Amino acid sequence: MTNRISERLNENSAVINDALSKYLDWKNDNDKYPCLFDSLRHSTLNGGKRIRPYLTLEFNRLSGGNDESAIPYACAIEFAHTYSCVHDDLPCMDNDDLRRGIPTNHKVYGEATALLAGDALLTHAFELIADNKFTSDSNKLRTVKLLAQCAGIHGMIGGQQLDLIGENTKYDFETLKYMQYLKTGKLLIAACVLGCYASGNDAYINAAVIYGEKIGLTFQIIDDILDVTGDVETLGKNTGSDSGNDKTTFLSFMNVDEAYKYASELTDEACDAIFGFAGSDILCDTAKYLLNRKK
Amino acid sequence: MTNRISERLNENSAVINDALSKYLDWKNDNDKYPCLFDSLRHSTLNGGKRIRPYLTLEFNRLSGGNDESAIPYACAIEFAHTYSCVHDDLPCMDNDDLRRGIPTNHKVYGEATALLAGDALLTHAFELIADNKFTSDSNKLRTVKLLAQCAGIHGMIGGQQLDLIGENTKYDFETLKYMQYLKTGKLLIAACVLGCYASGNDAYINAAVIYGEKIGLTFQIIDDILDVTGDVETLGKNTGSDSGNDKTTFLSFMNVDEAYKYASELTDEACDAIFGFAGSDILCDTAKYLLNRKK
Repeated sequence: MTNRISERLNENSAVINDALSKYLDWKNDNDKYPCLFDSLRHSTLNGGKRIRPYLTLEFNRLSGGNDESAIPYACAIEFAHTYSCVHDDLPCMDNDDLRRGIPTNHKVYGEATALLAGDALLTHAFELIADNKFTSDSNKLRTVKLLAQCAGIHGMIGGQQLDLIGENTKYDFETLKYMQYLKTGKLLIAACVLGCYASGNDAYINAAVIYGEKIGLTFQIIDDILDVTGDVETLGKNTGSDSGNDKTTFLSFMNVDEAYKYASELTDEACDAIFGFAGSDILCDTAKYLLNRKK
Repeated sequence: MTNRISERLNENSAVINDALSKYLDWKNDNDKYPCLFDSLRHSTLNGGKRIRPYLTLEFNRLSGGNDESAIPYACAIEFAHTYSCVHDDLPCMDNDDLRRGIPTNHKVYGEATALLAGDALLTHAFELIADNKFTSDSNKLRTVKLLAQCAGIHGMIGGQQLDLIGENTKYDFETLKYMQYLKTGKLLIAACVLGCYASGNDAYINAAVIYGEKIGLTFQIIDDILDVTGDVETLGKNTGSDSGNDKTTFLSFMNVDEAYKYASELTDEACDAIFGFAGSDILCDTAKYLLNRKK
């Protein structure tokens, strides 16, 4: 199972990397600021796991779509995710030096360019959606709206603000879950639903929302576990950051074994949500693969 | 003439402020991060001149539209402008303490929240456009695309990167103009064209592009003049910032009188672009008003 999903991730990554690379090849002779383009490529084309665009492609296939309509949406989601990473790594946020095994954007290009690179990636995500030639206008518009809602103040940005507040405030379990739902879950939900939007088959949307929410929470629990048990070399980023700054994590409420058990139950719920759809075993196995990831 | 435009600006500002205020009133009981909402309101609802949404409303009226379809676009442009101000004021960019006569966002809410507030405003601009109930889907989509292009890496963000590079590099006159075209001109062009998009009358688009470009350059020349001749109290922001850090400005190539003359010629060209359209005198007088502004 692990090998099959690992191969599938690699296959999808190749498709996504190819598309991302083309989308980022839009410098022209008038552009007198090559460092900004280099900065975007530095943070986007660096061997990320591509989980979000993978989910867009797979939900599109599950719901009967062709890849061509899903690829612009998948890349938009990855641009939005990359923007959030670039801004999140800045000194005024998490102040991280390392991401995906290489120096963070601001470490290479400086804070100002990193700030602008993040802004450019977010902006370009919306342009990509509006430019999707393989779907209807109404479909593209609901995609713009969904991305804005999931990435915006009631989604990822709200989650990041809660994360900031959490540096000085102890959260109860429900608030911790709500923060992670906004911060990580909402964009994963968008990734899954955008796949259904790309196929235009709305019968899969409810399942995509539940699946995205459950694997989002799982993702964060495993992140918390790896932050304690993982090592820098495997993870490609520094560990101990959360326990170091005394943030509330899932391990504030349970030990590693209990946290893993909780994540397993959420993974089962993710699989239940898509159970019965022909071909859903791939997405169920993906959820289990993410549960058992080591980086 | 001055009084008429001043009154018109105030009338439009009232409409825009009312709409912006409603759009920003979207906190709900689940939002455990009121500071982020306060931070958005701090930078948006603070008595800005509202030039950009004014232009959207006026080009919409000039081209025969009703206000209701232009207001969401006008607010989207103002959100995009406000986001750029919030990020531009950050310590890693211009490090400004004062904007529109009050402390900048990060001075009140901290850098991290200011960063997120800017991100949220940009994201919300796209949601507003996609949510405009008074125009067609294809119209909304081209608006999303235009805003993304004008605000993105080949527009405002590119101009800001050139501005950064300019802190250590002397520019020739053409590069200075190109930088200001990207940094200020593109969003003003978008503001004007969005008005035409709102009315759906494409016959005015070419004129709107030229008008926006010319007043954009004028705007920047006057900014450079006021940075030398203005005072903090009238401007509501610190002066001498450009000459202080040795940036190339229009005054690197001409004296104040020559710069004003150049701006007057550009203003004439802006008026020529819209000459002949019934009711265009308001927009021509607006260009002259902006030429002669003292803040």
